[in-house]
Amino acid sequence: MSEHNRRILLAARPEGMIKESDFRMETVAVEKPGDGEVLVRNEYLSLDPAMRGWMTDRPSYIPPVQLGEVMRGGTVGEVLESKHPDFKAGDKVRAMGGWQDYVVSKPDGRLMKLPEGLPIPITAHLSVLGITGLTAYFGLLDVGQPKEGETVVVSTAAGAVGSIVGQIAKIKGCRAVGLTSTDAKCTWIKEELGYDAAINYKTEEISPALAQHCPKGIDVYFDNVGGEILNAALGQINFKGRVAICGAITQYNATKMPPGPSNYLNLLVKSARMEGFIVMNYLDRAMEGAMQLGQWLMEGKLKYKEEIVDNLENAPTAILRLFNSSNTGKLIVKI
Amino acid sequence: MSEHNRRILLAARPEGMIKESDFRMETVAVEKPGDGEVLVRNEYLSLDPAMRGWMTDRPSYIPPVQLGEVMRGGTVGEVLESKHPDFKAGDKVRAMGGWQDYVVSKPDGRLMKLPEGLPIPITAHLSVLGITGLTAYFGLLDVGQPKEGETVVVSTAAGAVGSIVGQIAKIKGCRAVGLTSTDAKCTWIKEELGYDAAINYKTEEISPALAQHCPKGIDVYFDNVGGEILNAALGQINFKGRVAICGAITQYNATKMPPGPSNYLNLLVKSARMEGFIVMNYLDRAMEGAMQLGQWLMEGKLKYKEEIVDNLENAPTAILRLFNSSNTGKLIVKI
Repeated sequence: MSEHNRRILLAARPEGMIKESDFRMETVAVEKPGDGEVLVRNEYLSLDPAMRGWMTDRPSYIPPVQLGEVMRGGTVGEVLESKHPDFKAGDKVRAMGGWQDYVVSKPDGRLMKLPEGLPIPITAHLSVLGITGLTAYFGLLDVGQPKEGETVVVSTAAGAVGSIVGQIAKIKGCRAVGLTSTDAKCTWIKEELGYDAAINYKTEEISPALAQHCPKGIDVYFDNVGGEILNAALGQINFKGRVAICGAITQYNATKMPPGPSNYLNLLVKSARMEGFIVMNYLDRAMEGAMQLGQWLMEGKLKYKEEIVDNLENAPTAILRLFNSSNTGKLIVKI
Repeated sequence: MSEHNRRILLAARPEGMIKESDFRMETVAVEKPGDGEVLVRNEYLSLDPAMRGWMTDRPSYIPPVQLGEVMRGGTVGEVLESKHPDFKAGDKVRAMGGWQDYVVSKPDGRLMKLPEGLPIPITAHLSVLGITGLTAYFGLLDVGQPKEGETVVVSTAAGAVGSIVGQIAKIKGCRAVGLTSTDAKCTWIKEELGYDAAINYKTEEISPALAQHCPKGIDVYFDNVGGEILNAALGQINFKGRVAICGAITQYNATKMPPGPSNYLNLLVKSARMEGFIVMNYLDRAMEGAMQLGQWLMEGKLKYKEEIVDNLENAPTAILRLFNSSNTGKLIVKI
């Protein structure tokens, strides 16, 4: 164990796109756990679009990260020292460990032991079995409520969440249509993930492509992007259709509030519903979701892809990849 | 019985605001009912914001009125001659009789006998006990799902639907806050209808006024207007809040698609829901709604106001009043 903790702080609030200079790294001594606390060595850090929101000083579902604070982030790692009866050195855990080598944490619902003996890499607990998979699971099934035979459209279909959403849609007997940013990703989501159709939103006209691939209209649209794609999907929503708002990555770096979707009035015309959610709403059902996802994974029904970037120091540049569409699947930093 | 039927046809599709010249009146002979049909003399015609949508050639929940067709509209009237066993001359009925003196109709679910012996004027079946009241009833209770103690905000609070929504919100134990266009209407909705607070959206700043009158935020927003008020309400929506989209009167006469509400992303931040509906979705529950509304009416818990314009010929000018905020309560034409 090194005696130093490298940690990355929020140095400036980004205006528009995140810049490397919005972060600052410092090295401090590793803290000791107090009574009831555990010391965890963070092994892997999850990078998520939601982090952009946490960097902005605006009321939201959780407080923003303060300037000078360690940047917030989900991690998996190993307990080095425990002063809590439920944990012992060597336990593998999931935590909100932040962008740093070590974290001292109280078990508070966000620190939990990982199940043992699963034939999957530990990083899966940050991706398909972690927040990412649960977001796809509850967002699609609870908010989107797809029924067999319906058409489900997914934006960022090759992304961490979207890649799982499409596969769950297929498991549930739906037609799955995905939008992504390159022909290679289009091929991947069709051939590997089982999407029925893929749209390259950078080269194709979105509305005609949706009309072509959704000949019966759109019953569920799972939105991670906002903007033009959301508007096009609303334009083709079916009677009693559902739009699950999971994110709006096209909007996060905007410096002024972009207009909303002008087709929102189709909600009226089609008696349709647009509903936002955050995965934290489902904390009390996380076990149900993780067990179902794990079962599908073991049965070979669920595939996932991770891109693992080496070294905590590279996190500030790696996170930009979420916003310029250059990653596929789940983006993770090996600390 | 006159032998002539005055009828008002759609003469031109409006661009922007409806003009009188979009309509044309002609006089034709009264048709005879065929087998299974009834001849009805229309006594009163309902004027509704939705009519603007029916005049536009755009896919919607029902086909548009065709050029040269009699303008569509809900009516109450009296059966003059019946060749259907369920109806006899003298029956008072509700019908989609259109903008005309007489209609020949088959009983098809839209022609129905009115209950007899109620101590209310027949026009109530076009307002509080008609489509208007049912829209308020199902929109608020089924889509909005207000719970006791919650805050319900209503746009067009002095309008036909909004005036009922606020009163139902009060019956259900909610705080009711209404927006309307004049100080006189503000006084009316507070003193007569029981709204807890009223906002004159023409003279007050909407967001600060909402913040003042909704100190616990907005749980249910019943929207008839779209535009700035919808956006302001979304900006103050509570966790798990509901926005019921009933209409968007500010948008109907727009010549190009206005932008949507930029605050739609609050749906994500607040895990809130925005859902459109049309009253036709609830046809199978219309009796339930009408009976409950009738009971509240008899108990004195529900007040309603009607503005009755004389003479079918005045319908083309009267309908404009719906769009320039000059009416209060339900607008009806005495044919």
